[in-house]
Amino acid sequence: MFSYSHYKRVRYAETDKMGYLYYGHYAKYYEIGRVESMRSLGITYKSLEDDYKVMLPVLEMKTRYLRPAYYDENIEIRSILYEMPEKMILFHHELYNEEKKLINKASIKLFFIDMEQQKRISCPDVLYSKFSKFFD
Amino acid sequence: MFSYSHYKRVRYAETDKMGYLYYGHYAKYYEIGRVESMRSLGITYKSLEDDYKVMLPVLEMKTRYLRPAYYDENIEIRSILYEMPEKMILFHHELYNEEKKLINKASIKLFFIDMEQQKRISCPDVLYSKFSKFFD
Amino acid sequence: MFSYSHYKRVRYAETDKMGYLYYGHYAKYYEIGRVESMRSLGITYKSLEDDYKVMLPVLEMKTRYLRPAYYDENIEIRSILYEMPEKMILFHHELYNEEKKLINKASIKLFFIDMEQQKRISCPDVLYSKFSKFFD
Amino acid sequence: MFSYSHYKRVRYAETDKMGYLYYGHYAKYYEIGRVESMRSLGITYKSLEDDYKVMLPVLEMKTRYLRPAYYDENIEIRSILYEMPEKMILFHHELYNEEKKLINKASIKLFFIDMEQQKRISCPDVLYSKFSKFFD
Repeated sequence: MFSYSHYKRVRYAETDKMGYLYYGHYAKYYEIGRVESMRSLGITYKSLEDDYKVMLPVLEMKTRYLRPAYYDENIEIRSILYEMPEKMILFHHELYNEEKKLINKASIKLFFIDMEQQKRISCPDVLYSKFSKFFD
Repeated sequence: MFSYSHYKRVRYAETDKMGYLYYGHYAKYYEIGRVESMRSLGITYKSLEDDYKVMLPVLEMKTRYLRPAYYDENIEIRSILYEMPEKMILFHHELYNEEKKLINKASIKLFFIDMEQQKRISCPDVLYSKFSKFFD
Repeated sequence: MFSYSHYKRVRYAETDKMGYLYYGHYAKYYEIGRVESMRSLGITYKSLEDDYKVMLPVLEMKTRYLRPAYYDENIEIRSILYEMPEKMILFHHELYNEEKKLINKASIKLFFIDMEQQKRISCPDVLYSKFSKFFD
Repeated sequence: MFSYSHYKRVRYAETDKMGYLYYGHYAKYYEIGRVESMRSLGITYKSLEDDYKVMLPVLEMKTRYLRPAYYDENIEIRSILYEMPEKMILFHHELYNEEKKLINKASIKLFFIDMEQQKRISCPDVLYSKFSKFFD
C-alpha cells in the first residue's frame, strides 16, 4: 500500500453560494493529490508527458461527499494505492478537514496512453518501479 | 421516466493542455443539466432555495469518461430520472458530442435540506408534483 | 463600430460565498462574448486556430465591477469593437443583468500569433474582411 | 511599502489547449496573493468576514500578460502595497516564473463593505494597524 498526504487550502474562487467548496472542484483536489504523490516518489507528471510521452486520462471517478468543506480550511488530500498499477492505475483519495474529520472519499481510475502511438499501454516502467517498493 | 436535453458549448476556459474538456468540469455540465431540466418543468433551482428554502447538496457522483470532448463542441447534456425522487433524487446524465456519440455517463445522488431547520427532508411537494406526471 | 450580444446564465459553479459571480469568472464571459461575436460573422475561433493557424493570446485586460451578478441571472454580454483590428484587436465588453443595469465594463487587448512561425502578425485577412464592413 | 511572496503551482485544471495558464485564472492567483499576504501579517480574510463583518469586493482589475505560464511551474505571486489603504486598498501583483522572469503585472482595487450595514466604509482598524508599520 502507498499513501501520501498533501495539503491545499479552500479558496474563495472555489466556494459557492452555499458557502461550501463547490462539488465540481473536488476533481482538481484529486488531481493535485495524484500529482504531488508522484512528485514525492521523484517522478513528475509533467515529465511523464514531456519526457516519456505518456499521458493518463481519467476513465472513471466515484466520489462521496460526507461533510462540506468551508472557505480557508486547509484540506488534507490523502492519495492511496491499494494495488500496483498494471493496465490501469486506481487512486483512492480521502479528504480531511482541519478537525481531521473525513469529508470526502473518492476513487479515480486512469489509464496510460502512449502519446506518440496514440494507443493504450500498461503502466510505464518509470512509474512502475517507483510504486513497486510499496508492494510485494 | 423523465428525460431532458440541454446544450452547452465547450469553452477555451474548460479545455486543458491535452486539448480536452478537463475531467473536473463535467460536474458543472451535470449541474447545468439538472437545473435546466427543472426549469423545463416550470421550477427553478433558484426558487427552490430562495422561496422554498430547500437546497440539494450532492451526496454521491459516479462518472465514466468514454470519449474526450473537444473545444467548441456543442455538447448535449441529457438529464434522466428513472425513478421518482423520494428521500433522495438520482439524476443520470448522458453527454453526447456533435456526432451524437456518447462521451460520458454519470449518476448524481442529491438529498434535500430544509435550510431553515438545517435538517434533511424528503422531496418537497413543489418538485414532487412536477416529476410525478412522468411516473405512474 | 461593431457590436454583438450573447447571453449566458450565472451558474452555481460560478458563484462564491458572497453569493456573487466570482470576480475571476468574468474573463470567461469575455471569452464567450468574443467567440460568439466572431461566430455571428461566420468565422469561428476554432477555425482560426485549426485552419488558419492563428491564435489570439490576451495581452491586457481592464475591468470594472459596477454591480454584483447573482446566481441564475441571464447576463447579456455585449462585445464591441470601436476600431478595426490592425496589429491588435481591442474588444470592449459591457455586461448587463436582467434589469438591463450595467454591471461590468471591460476592455481586452489581444494580438495575433502565427502558430507555425511562432511570431506575431497583423490581423489575418479572414478576420479583417469580416470586420471591415462595419467600419469605413 | 509592503511586499509579500507566496508560491502556487500551475495545475492541469488551469491550463488551456494552448498549453498556457488560462488568462482567466490569474484572478485566482491574485486572490491567493492578497489572502496569504494578509495571513503573513496575522489577519485572515476569513476572520475579516466572520469576526469583523467586513468584506472586500473587487472594484477594478488591470492586468498585463507578458509571458505565458506553463503547466507545473511554481509561480511566485508577489503582492505589493505602495500606499496605505484608506477608502480603498490597491494591491499590485507581480508574477514570476521559475526562471524569475516577470510573466504578469496586475493591480486590483478593492473597497470595504460593512456586511451588517451593507454600506461602504474605510479600511477597518484591524487591517489598518497591520499595514501601518510598513508606511510612515
